[in-house]
Amino acid sequence: MSTVIPHWLDKQADLSPDETAVEWKDGTTVTFSQLAENSREKARKLAAADVTKGDHVAVLSGNSIEMIETIHACSYLGAVAVLLNMRLTAFERKQQMEDAEVTLLVAEAEEEALTEIKQLTFEKLNQLKASPHMQLLEEIELSDVFTMMYTSGTSGFPKAVQHTYENHWWSATSSSLNFGKHNDDKWLIPLPLFHVSGLSTMLKGIIYGMPIYLLEKFDVEDVHDAIMNKEVTIASVVTVMLQRLVSYLGESSYPESFRCMLLGGGPAPESLLQQTKAKQIPVFQSYGMTETASQIVTLSPRDALRKVGSAGKPLFPAQLKIRGQQANEVGEILVKGPMVTPGYYNRPEANEKSFLNGWLATGDVGYLDEEGFLYVVDRRSDLIISGGENIYPSEIENILLQIEGIREAGVTGLTDKEWGEIPVAFVVTDKMITKEEILSFLKDKLARYKHPKEIHYMDQLPRNAANKLVRQALKNYR
Amino acid sequence: MSTVIPHWLDKQADLSPDETAVEWKDGTTVTFSQLAENSREKARKLAAADVTKGDHVAVLSGNSIEMIETIHACSYLGAVAVLLNMRLTAFERKQQMEDAEVTLLVAEAEEEALTEIKQLTFEKLNQLKASPHMQLLEEIELSDVFTMMYTSGTSGFPKAVQHTYENHWWSATSSSLNFGKHNDDKWLIPLPLFHVSGLSTMLKGIIYGMPIYLLEKFDVEDVHDAIMNKEVTIASVVTVMLQRLVSYLGESSYPESFRCMLLGGGPAPESLLQQTKAKQIPVFQSYGMTETASQIVTLSPRDALRKVGSAGKPLFPAQLKIRGQQANEVGEILVKGPMVTPGYYNRPEANEKSFLNGWLATGDVGYLDEEGFLYVVDRRSDLIISGGENIYPSEIENILLQIEGIREAGVTGLTDKEWGEIPVAFVVTDKMITKEEILSFLKDKLARYKHPKEIHYMDQLPRNAANKLVRQALKNYR
Repeated sequence: MSTVIPHWLDKQADLSPDETAVEWKDGTTVTFSQLAENSREKARKLAAADVTKGDHVAVLSGNSIEMIETIHACSYLGAVAVLLNMRLTAFERKQQMEDAEVTLLVAEAEEEALTEIKQLTFEKLNQLKASPHMQLLEEIELSDVFTMMYTSGTSGFPKAVQHTYENHWWSATSSSLNFGKHNDDKWLIPLPLFHVSGLSTMLKGIIYGMPIYLLEKFDVEDVHDAIMNKEVTIASVVTVMLQRLVSYLGESSYPESFRCMLLGGGPAPESLLQQTKAKQIPVFQSYGMTETASQIVTLSPRDALRKVGSAGKPLFPAQLKIRGQQANEVGEILVKGPMVTPGYYNRPEANEKSFLNGWLATGDVGYLDEEGFLYVVDRRSDLIISGGENIYPSEIENILLQIEGIREAGVTGLTDKEWGEIPVAFVVTDKMITKEEILSFLKDKLARYKHPKEIHYMDQLPRNAANKLVRQALKNYR
Repeated sequence: MSTVIPHWLDKQADLSPDETAVEWKDGTTVTFSQLAENSREKARKLAAADVTKGDHVAVLSGNSIEMIETIHACSYLGAVAVLLNMRLTAFERKQQMEDAEVTLLVAEAEEEALTEIKQLTFEKLNQLKASPHMQLLEEIELSDVFTMMYTSGTSGFPKAVQHTYENHWWSATSSSLNFGKHNDDKWLIPLPLFHVSGLSTMLKGIIYGMPIYLLEKFDVEDVHDAIMNKEVTIASVVTVMLQRLVSYLGESSYPESFRCMLLGGGPAPESLLQQTKAKQIPVFQSYGMTETASQIVTLSPRDALRKVGSAGKPLFPAQLKIRGQQANEVGEILVKGPMVTPGYYNRPEANEKSFLNGWLATGDVGYLDEEGFLYVVDRRSDLIISGGENIYPSEIENILLQIEGIREAGVTGLTDKEWGEIPVAFVVTDKMITKEEILSFLKDKLARYKHPKEIHYMDQLPRNAANKLVRQALKNYR
C-alpha cells in the first residue's frame, strides 16, 4: 500500500480556513474553505453527471477559479483530470480526448462538437443538481494518478504524461526545500494552468497554504504591477516574459520582499542575466519538463553568473546523470526521483524506451561539469521552445506530409529575439503549392503557435547516410 | 517498490558542501561535506567490523559529532542504528540490546560488560582500518528502517519503535510546511539525540541544509546565549526548560529573528503562556511521541491563548480522531500519517493492539473541540513525564515486586514545580524493608530518573471491583 495522506484541499481548509487561496488582479480573492466547499459541490455535480472513480474527465479552460474547482472536484471522486491546451485546434484536442479515453469534457465554453464525448460547460455543470449523498474521498492515496497532460514527444504523436499525487507532492516539497517557505509568500502565475508549471504552482498553493496570484494570461503591465504593488514574492516566467519585464522595469527595481523569479524554458542569454543582476532580480534558472511535474534542476542566483548557461543542480530528492558519460562529456540526460511521471498513458512502447531502471531518458543532451552543474546542450529531438510552448518538428512534418503534392518536409527552430525560437518549414513539392494553401491546410489541424513562420521550397532535404533527415542542417538552407 | 531518493547526506554535501551542518557553543563547526566524508569513512570502518546490510548497531553516546557520524555510517551500509538512552542503567541497556538483536555496540566510552555483544568505543572504531572497496549505498529506499529507540509503553516492558527513512522524511517536511523554512534558520537542540525530538531535529538539519546548534545538555545560560547571540532562530524545549529560560530572560527579550520555540512534553500551564506572550516569545505547543517521529500536532502562537490547554491541530499530512467519539467527547486519541512508525520491533501482539487499519492507538485520552483543536486529557496509561523523560509506572512496579517482602506496589506521578511530574511509590510489605534497602535494590536496575522520589508504606492499595490497581487514587494516600 502506498502512502496515504488526508485530502490536501480539505486539510488546508481545516488549517487555514480564512486565508487566501487565490487572488486576482481586480482584488477578488477566494479562501481555502471557499475553494474546498465549491470543489466539493462541483464533485457532487460531476457525480450527478455519472463521473466515478477512475474516470477521465477532460478540462478545457483558461485560468479561472472554475477550472481549479473542477480539477479538485475530480480528485474528490478519484477521477483523473485531463488538462487540454486551449491553444490547440479542436481537431488536436479531439485526438487527445480519444487517446486519453475521456468520458466527459468540462469546458469554459462550448467546444466544437467533433466527437461523441459528452460535454458540459462550467455553466451547465453548475446547473446540475448535486448528488447529496455522494461520499467524497477524504484521503489521497499518493500513488494514484491525479492529472494527465499531453506532450508530443519525439514521435510527433502526442502522448499523455500521467501525474500521480506523489509526483505533485514531491514537486511541491522539493521546491520548498530549495526556495524555502515563508509565511508571507505569494506566488504569481502568468502561465496557463493546463501546462505543468502553472498547474504545479497552483498545487503548491494548496500544499503550502499559500495564496497564488493568478493572471488569465501574461501581460507585462499586470505582472509588473503584481510584483511592485501586490506583495508577490515569487513568480514563474519563461525567458521571453523576463525580457519584457526587465525592459519594462527600466531604472526602477523590485521590492526587496520579491525573492524569487523562477525561470523556465531553456537557458537564459548571458546579456539578460547581466541585466537582471544589475537590477538585483533574484533569477533562478531551471530545467524541467512535463514528465518531471515542473522544474527538477535549478540554478540559484549566487551561481547564475559563475555558471552561465547552466541549469543548475537537481533538487534534493532528485538525481541526474549523463548516460554512460563522465564529467564534461556530452550525452543524454537521465533523471530520477519521486516527481518523475510513472509513465505515458497507454504507451507501453514509449514507456519501455523512456524508462531505464527507474531513470527517465529525457532525450535532451547535455553534460555535467566537475562540480555537478548541468549544461543542456540540445533539447530533445530538435524540440523547439517558442514563448514557453513546446513544439515538436515531427508533429508539424506529419501534417505537412498530408498535403497532396508535398513529398518531403523538414521543420527546425530558428532563434527569435521575441519568442526564443520559431518553427520554420522546408518542403519538397511535386507540384506548385502556395504558402497560403499550406497554411490554410494547417489551420484546423495544428495550433496557431505551431504554424511555420517561414516556408522554404527545396529540391531536396539534407539527409545522412541512413537517409535520415538532418534537421540541424536545415538552418543552413535558409 | 517504495519511493527512492538519493542518500540525503551525500545530496546535501553536494548542494551545500561548505555550509555549516553542526555548530557547537565553543564556535567549532562541521560542514556538510565534512560530515558526509567522515560518516562515509566511519561506514567503511563499521564494514571492517563486519557490519552489513540489515544489521542492528547500538549507539550509546551523549550529543557528539561522533554519534551523528555513526548514525549516518549505519545508513550508508543499510544497517539500523539502535539509539540507547545514556540515563538508563547498563542492565536496562543490556535488555534493550538483546531485545533489538544488536550485533555491535558503538559507544562513547567502555560499557559495563554485561553481555557478549561486541563493543567498540568511538576511539577504537576510529583506529580500525577502513574497508576501502566497500560499496556504500548511494540511494535511500524510504520504506527501509533507519533507526530504533525504546519506549516502555503500557506493559512496562520496553519495546523498540522502528523509524523508517519515510517517517523521518515526512516528519521533517511536515514540520517545514508548518513552521516555514528560511535560509537563515539555525535550530538549537538542547535535548539528547537518543530521544526522538533531538534525532528528528538533527535529521531536519540534513534534509533542509540547515545548521543545528548542538548542546551536550540543557543549560539555561547556554540556551539563552545561543538565542541572544548565536543567531539561533528555532529551539526545541520541554516545559521545565522553558520555565527556566523565561525566568532567566527577566526583563530582556529575544531578538526578532528568533521565530519559534517548539515546546513538547505536555500542555504548558496558562501562567507560563501568559508570561511568554508578555515577553513575545513565539511558543508553539506540540503533541507527539516516539511513535510519531516527533511532533504530530502543534498549536501556533496566534491560537495559544485562545486555546489554552490545547495541543493544536495535526500537521498537514497527518490525521487525528478520537476513537468512536464526536466533538467535545473524551476518548482515546488515534493518529495516522506517513510519519507514524510501521510498528514495534518483534512485537506482533503489541502491533496488533496498537494499529487499527493504519491508525495508531496512542493510549492517550483527549477530545477535539468544534474547530478540531486537540485537548489531551490524560497521557497514556498513567504515563509520568519528568523533565521530558517518559516514565511508565508499571516498569517501576515490576522491579519493586522483585524485592523479597514487597507484596504489592503502585506508582503514580505527582505534580512537581521543577520537573513537571515525579514518580512516587506505594508499597505493601510482608516484613520490615527500609527505603534505603529499596533504593539500593533499584540502583542497577532502573535509571536514576525513574527512582521513586517518595516511598509510602500502606496496608492495602486502592483497587477497583476487578481488583485492578487504581493508580489515580494513590495520589490521595500521600
